[in-house]
Amino acid sequence: MNVTVGRRSRHYRTVSFEARRNQILLIEQRLLPHRFQIVAMRNYHETARAIKDMIVRGAGAIGATAAYGLAQGARAFRGRDLTRFTRHVEAVYVALKAARPTAVDPVNAMDKVRDAMASGRTVEAQQELALKAAEEFANEDVAHCEAIGRQGAPLIKENTRVLTHCNAGWLAFVDIGTATAPLYAAQGEGRRFHVFCDETRPRSQGATLTAWELAQQSISHEVIADGAAGHLMQRGHVDLVIVGSDRTLGRTGEVANKIGTYSKAVLANRHGIPFYVAIPLSTIDWNLASGFEVPIEERGQDEVLGAWGISRGGRRFYCRVANPGSGARNPGFDVTPPDLITGIITPTGVFKPRELWKNRSKLGFLGGAPN
Amino acid sequence: MNVTVGRRSRHYRTVSFEARRNQILLIEQRLLPHRFQIVAMRNYHETARAIKDMIVRGAGAIGATAAYGLAQGARAFRGRDLTRFTRHVEAVYVALKAARPTAVDPVNAMDKVRDAMASGRTVEAQQELALKAAEEFANEDVAHCEAIGRQGAPLIKENTRVLTHCNAGWLAFVDIGTATAPLYAAQGEGRRFHVFCDETRPRSQGATLTAWELAQQSISHEVIADGAAGHLMQRGHVDLVIVGSDRTLGRTGEVANKIGTYSKAVLANRHGIPFYVAIPLSTIDWNLASGFEVPIEERGQDEVLGAWGISRGGRRFYCRVANPGSGARNPGFDVTPPDLITGIITPTGVFKPRELWKNRSKLGFLGGAPN
Repeated sequence: MNVTVGRRSRHYRTVSFEARRNQILLIEQRLLPHRFQIVAMRNYHETARAIKDMIVRGAGAIGATAAYGLAQGARAFRGRDLTRFTRHVEAVYVALKAARPTAVDPVNAMDKVRDAMASGRTVEAQQELALKAAEEFANEDVAHCEAIGRQGAPLIKENTRVLTHCNAGWLAFVDIGTATAPLYAAQGEGRRFHVFCDETRPRSQGATLTAWELAQQSISHEVIADGAAGHLMQRGHVDLVIVGSDRTLGRTGEVANKIGTYSKAVLANRHGIPFYVAIPLSTIDWNLASGFEVPIEERGQDEVLGAWGISRGGRRFYCRVANPGSGARNPGFDVTPPDLITGIITPTGVFKPRELWKNRSKLGFLGGAPN
Repeated sequence: MNVTVGRRSRHYRTVSFEARRNQILLIEQRLLPHRFQIVAMRNYHETARAIKDMIVRGAGAIGATAAYGLAQGARAFRGRDLTRFTRHVEAVYVALKAARPTAVDPVNAMDKVRDAMASGRTVEAQQELALKAAEEFANEDVAHCEAIGRQGAPLIKENTRVLTHCNAGWLAFVDIGTATAPLYAAQGEGRRFHVFCDETRPRSQGATLTAWELAQQSISHEVIADGAAGHLMQRGHVDLVIVGSDRTLGRTGEVANKIGTYSKAVLANRHGIPFYVAIPLSTIDWNLASGFEVPIEERGQDEVLGAWGISRGGRRFYCRVANPGSGARNPGFDVTPPDLITGIITPTGVFKPRELWKNRSKLGFLGGAPN
């Protein structure tokens, strides 16, 4: 998407590759929204560290970074010995995988790159195939998000007032994002609308990342406290809710997403406001039989007991807010049942949540019958 | 309630009066939860400033402070000229009223003191009557909160898990509080239970004041992000919700309270969790015919766009969190309809919200028939 630095507006992807220097270029997300900076990862060790240290975060973005990282590592190999090359690539794969051991996206992405390399007969051929496959992976991520945008854009009419939660924006993908994709597509079609960004405590991704994204695209928006959405809905100020998802259950239509999503779905339902979830196909879980099986990560107490502010020098710092003697509960995600969801916006269509399974062939399902 | 400073635990009221020195003693609430300090207001000018600068806040607490302030001002008068004395008292009244021009509690409280003074035939007699009336006002505030505690305590059984929102605790009254009164009463009856404190963005009164209060009374509690309550209810971790109210409509049973209250009521309703509102009689509005007539104050954007942290030196400071280019909406209150409220806990009984009007004679209603 476009970012304005000083007076210049330029197009950036969250992740991109400079083939001549064999470098991966990343938006340094830890500095946002207060500072925009592109950082270059000069070798796969630096790339692994960028994933680990969360310079880059978000499912699609870390997938593409790992894909490029594997190509970068492969291309850095000097020599023609295919056996030694294969051993080297394996070490790169292991290093990148270890950077975020519980995430599935880097592994899926690197497997695609490795599969593509297999047809190469020389080191050089495999190096070329690796880069091509990584580029394809990144471009596919963009194409999927563009398709989500096309599917969702008709929901956003002139003057629609949209509520969002957390950040499933372009910073979490290679470009465009999922929950934000229909917004950018509607803007591209010339419509004006307004977005309320839930601040999304405790980590405030709505107030920081989503608000920054929308500001960069000059989309009218306001940040609200998480508790304010109910009042705004009651007074008729919200027409539509769109959120992303960390995991959507293909068999039940349940949606796991950032803590607070479920509350917004319950409120939207009470007020007859359409509630949509925008997802890439990769986040559909075809295995789980119930939302109660989704592991809900209990995160550190400090997130709830304080906030991350920004100093005058532009440095982020943690400040304690709550009573010093008190503890906190901090579930990171919640699960929204299908009866509260109007539709699931995917690259291949908008589906009722309970009809995902019926439409599984359109949704990239590769497995067998349900257990 | 008891406060532990260092190793000593002592009983404090939020507002008290030292007759010998003609001083009002206040808990300096702007320093909480990080520092506990009692400050003395030596004359009515200082008392007015304490109300204005929010050293003391909360309906009952500012009412009692104004009542004491009027007595303090009256008692500072030297001389026997009743006409000059009356003029002086009028000036005190005006100064204290101007400290928080939109609040009704200081005015109601001072009117009671002034009415009581009227029967005195000398300056000295009126001064004595003023102090007596102010003491009575403060003691009545405490008695009402104790009565709310008695009415609400049976709701809290052994191991009940209670959710609260914002702070309607003893710091907002002379002592004990309203939403917290049933908790303290249940503790007094020897029961153990657990409280989830909504942090209550944007001003975080739950994370700061309520958490501090509960910690002082050694009541088991945890702070949660405002968006987390829905998940906790869905997973069966909440048995009961108790909140306070800024204004309760006697004719409709609608409850205006801190922003975010309505969302909790909707969620509790979905999960079949009892939702109670604890109120003193003074917050019942017998005039308004609809919750849509309640003016919802739109507060400053900075509250939503940042947070108040605490420095190592114990000083509170504002830190910006949100994207620097973005604005915010900040409605301060919302209105919960009666169909979501299980009961209204008052000093004179627990009532269904729609039965307040029928029971108006028990609830201190003094006016005529509805419009």
